[in-house]
Amino acid sequence: MIIDTYRKYGFNKIETPYAERIELLTSGEGGENEQLIFKILKRGDKLQLDKAEAIDDLVDLGLRYDLTVPLVRFYANNRSKLPYPFRSIQIGPVWRADRPQKGRFRQFHQCDIDIIGDSSILAEIQLILAASEVLQQIGFEEHTIRLNDRKILTGLADAANIKPEDHSTFFITLDKLDKIGLDGVKQECLNKGFNSKQVSIFFEAVHQIFTTASLSEQINLLPKSITEQVIISFQQIFQTVQDQLIGGASIKFDPTLVRGMGYYTGPIFEIESKGFGGAIAGGGRYDDMSGKYLSKPEPSCGISIGFERILSIIEDTNFEIPKKENRLAFLYPKNLSPNEFSELLSQAKYWREEGYIVTLTEQKKNTNKQLSQLSENGFGFFVKYGESELRKIQS
Amino acid sequence: MIIDTYRKYGFNKIETPYAERIELLTSGEGGENEQLIFKILKRGDKLQLDKAEAIDDLVDLGLRYDLTVPLVRFYANNRSKLPYPFRSIQIGPVWRADRPQKGRFRQFHQCDIDIIGDSSILAEIQLILAASEVLQQIGFEEHTIRLNDRKILTGLADAANIKPEDHSTFFITLDKLDKIGLDGVKQECLNKGFNSKQVSIFFEAVHQIFTTASLSEQINLLPKSITEQVIISFQQIFQTVQDQLIGGASIKFDPTLVRGMGYYTGPIFEIESKGFGGAIAGGGRYDDMSGKYLSKPEPSCGISIGFERILSIIEDTNFEIPKKENRLAFLYPKNLSPNEFSELLSQAKYWREEGYIVTLTEQKKNTNKQLSQLSENGFGFFVKYGESELRKIQS
Repeated sequence: MIIDTYRKYGFNKIETPYAERIELLTSGEGGENEQLIFKILKRGDKLQLDKAEAIDDLVDLGLRYDLTVPLVRFYANNRSKLPYPFRSIQIGPVWRADRPQKGRFRQFHQCDIDIIGDSSILAEIQLILAASEVLQQIGFEEHTIRLNDRKILTGLADAANIKPEDHSTFFITLDKLDKIGLDGVKQECLNKGFNSKQVSIFFEAVHQIFTTASLSEQINLLPKSITEQVIISFQQIFQTVQDQLIGGASIKFDPTLVRGMGYYTGPIFEIESKGFGGAIAGGGRYDDMSGKYLSKPEPSCGISIGFERILSIIEDTNFEIPKKENRLAFLYPKNLSPNEFSELLSQAKYWREEGYIVTLTEQKKNTNKQLSQLSENGFGFFVKYGESELRKIQS
Repeated sequence: MIIDTYRKYGFNKIETPYAERIELLTSGEGGENEQLIFKILKRGDKLQLDKAEAIDDLVDLGLRYDLTVPLVRFYANNRSKLPYPFRSIQIGPVWRADRPQKGRFRQFHQCDIDIIGDSSILAEIQLILAASEVLQQIGFEEHTIRLNDRKILTGLADAANIKPEDHSTFFITLDKLDKIGLDGVKQECLNKGFNSKQVSIFFEAVHQIFTTASLSEQINLLPKSITEQVIISFQQIFQTVQDQLIGGASIKFDPTLVRGMGYYTGPIFEIESKGFGGAIAGGGRYDDMSGKYLSKPEPSCGISIGFERILSIIEDTNFEIPKKENRLAFLYPKNLSPNEFSELLSQAKYWREEGYIVTLTEQKKNTNKQLSQLSENGFGFFVKYGESELRKIQS
């Protein structure tokens, strides 16, 4: 369903490898996630413990922490074969060892759409609208898109006299707003050496924006150091998305939105749903990343839906249970002869062709007890070997 | 499609983690695949290079090399919540570093169905028939099921005076028949210290079986040390499958079939397709494996389809191309105003709702050239911004 909707927006499904060369994953663009990489040992003769001076001498691959780095590497390797601009859908797992002390294997699934080769704001707009449509379809009728721009964030930090070289430290702390709250963030900023004036200027500006109703008035509050082009693009994205959103979706300007990854360069966005802690989707523009592989970087933009966060609401275990009305237990007696086996399988096949999910089940002595167990296990019907009658299991 | 077919046989989809604790993956049951595990470094404080005496001190997890080990671990952890017998479908990647010298990351996709808790031959029969049906559906009309039994293999080795403790060495070599041919296998057996009498007895027996037409005569050629129960079960599986196979599928007895994994205990099978080197599916019974986790092992049986082997035939890259007749390029002029953006998106939405895959594309000066490029890229139609007419792209 998700894929079908994305396809209608012109995105095409691709698959990228789950592991990449470790150098690609640790070039600084992944922000804090680079600390959370599952690293894979070299193999064969290349693995030499006695010659290793550091752990990294033993490692050549890492499991990907997102789908963006592999996408850009894939694009660079295959660009001659790909349409331009390139619009991709990826669904797949990513790994982050975010509780290293527990030794747990943390695997998430993400579904990303990206546009490589489109510098216009139509890229952002389409990504947000497509993801919003998908989220509505899978049951998140009411959700809010939080929109920001890395350049607005930078402008606000500049206005608070935070030096460019300290921005990333500041933003890493700001990014914890969801987890440790406003007071927590302010305190951590002070602990990290920002002075109280810097902190109060920044959060006063943010407060003003949050307590102002209209976008145009919010924009007026922004520092003049932010270029007009950034502002115009931001407004256009905001207004066009707002015009086009359907159902219970809405958009707001959130000047505190950071997004962890170091690779974002322009507009950034997250989608959150009422009663649901944390974002269910997020993304942004990352125009520089492909410059690592290509002589000239391609403008790029993407949005990612996090599946586990969504699925954790609707399912408890990983075991799927089909609908009762389709499930048929085909009961057969013990010790069938080969000919009877064939007959049994032919009869089962008949019911499958009638559309039922047919589970062959040896009949037990206490058939009533067995039927009530089958009912508990989700079977709606049974047929006995040699009989042509489909019977409903009384539940 | 594959999943739907398997579901009709009563299998339910589950997901298991991609990594397991390294001890589970290296307990000897994976045969040679245990040499090919991608090992994952410990994280955080547990990773101490200076205290490591061996590589294994640095490792706590490994990427799975098949779907069977994770399934059995999953079953043991969740059995109270699962139906009995438990019939599972899994689709997912596995990893084997089978060219360690190249440092490549080898990732395969497999689709497995398994039955845990059924000791009857109906398990083998259903698995084989379901997999055969799936293979037919995805285009492998003509395929052959090669059937053997680990106990027949053992009986033949016993009859050639190969000591029980040497069986596994012998079988590892025999398993290379596809790759190095009969002469190669015989030579390697001699190199490994088996004498020429052992080798000639074994391969003479095999030759006799291969040159005998009917199963009942083949069975008569087998050593008397093989129990009647093994023989009867084997015949029943063979005959019932033969009776039920549809289309161009066939079954044959192959006494040289080994299957690499150490965990198999009874019937084993592979499916091969004409003109296609190597097996496209394989499996067997592994009744003992769950004994590692449970006080009493559960009879278990499974079959695995290898996807890359199948997909490599039909696709060259990982990039999917949708059908031309559904694809519409929506051309828009440069420098649209915000209002025009909204109008553009509304128009695009209209065409999506009409069923088209709509790709927004900035109109270039040389529109004819652009249209011919769009045609090459798989677009069948275009619409211009502000026009309501759908036009076919002349190719």
